Amino acid sequence: MNGISRRNFVKNSALAAGTIGVVNIAEAKTFKELFVHHVYFYLKNPDSETDKAKLLEGLEKLSKVPTIRMVHIGVPATTTRSVIVRDYSVSWLCFFDNLDEEEIYQKHPIHLKFVEDYAHLWEKVNVYDSIGPKR
Amino acid sequence: MNGISRRNFVKNSALAAGTIGVVNIAEAKTFKELFVHHVYFYLKNPDSETDKAKLLEGLEKLSKVPTIRMVHIGVPATTTRSVIVRDYSVSWLCFFDNLDEEEIYQKHPIHLKFVEDYAHLWEKVNVYDSIGPKR
Repeated sequence: MNGISRRNFVKNSALAAGTIGVVNIAEAKTFKELFVHHVYFYLKNPDSETDKAKLLEGLEKLSKVPTIRMVHIGVPATTTRSVIVRDYSVSWLCFFDNLDEEEIYQKHPIHLKFVEDYAHLWEKVNVYDSIGPKR
Repeated sequence: MNGISRRNFVKNSALAAGTIGVVNIAEAKTFKELFVHHVYFYLKNPDSETDKAKLLEGLEKLSKVPTIRMVHIGVPATTTRSVIVRDYSVSWLCFFDNLDEEEIYQKHPIHLKFVEDYAHLWEKVNVYDSIGPKR
């Protein structure tokens, strides 16, 4: 099976199955056009492993919002060069097909419940939304 | 073809072909364990569309570093809620299999050439490296 056929297989089988999250950057346009939503959480008690674990638990629930195409939940890596920001506690990175889908996520009951149940844990969030430059 | 077979097909065909960038979040572990490297560029001349275009051109070249699994090049979206940071000019988001692969990227000739050719354009970069919390 050559590259193009394989890519089409991946794409078509994903569509056929209604599967989210299959993205092949060989089809650059698809991935490049996604809407990136990256949130950095600053906990009220940044030294509390309990609070961090609770937030991570909440984000696992939040990841069920159906318009999310891909999600990555993280914590600061061990890299320490001077340009690296390490003052946040938890990173929440997700991709949407477009801004409309992100707005659906903002208003989705799962998201509202997440804020209701877990917002007491954080002092602030910094959010970076970005899109491909050629839109 | 059931879900598991399809996922294995995607994974194995990607490995067999040496293709980067095929990631299926149905195999949550795979995606969750990736190393996230997110850079926000602050241009010296943030109002210069020419400088921004040059940087974007440089990032397209940088995206050829072979250890990059996925890459998204972006600019601030139109969202404007109070928590949203919009003061950067360009977002460079990429994924690596692990820290070692990111370190290879840092030292790769394509990366060094990118810095040599384009660093004069930016005033600063803020870099957020994050990894899955259970490593």
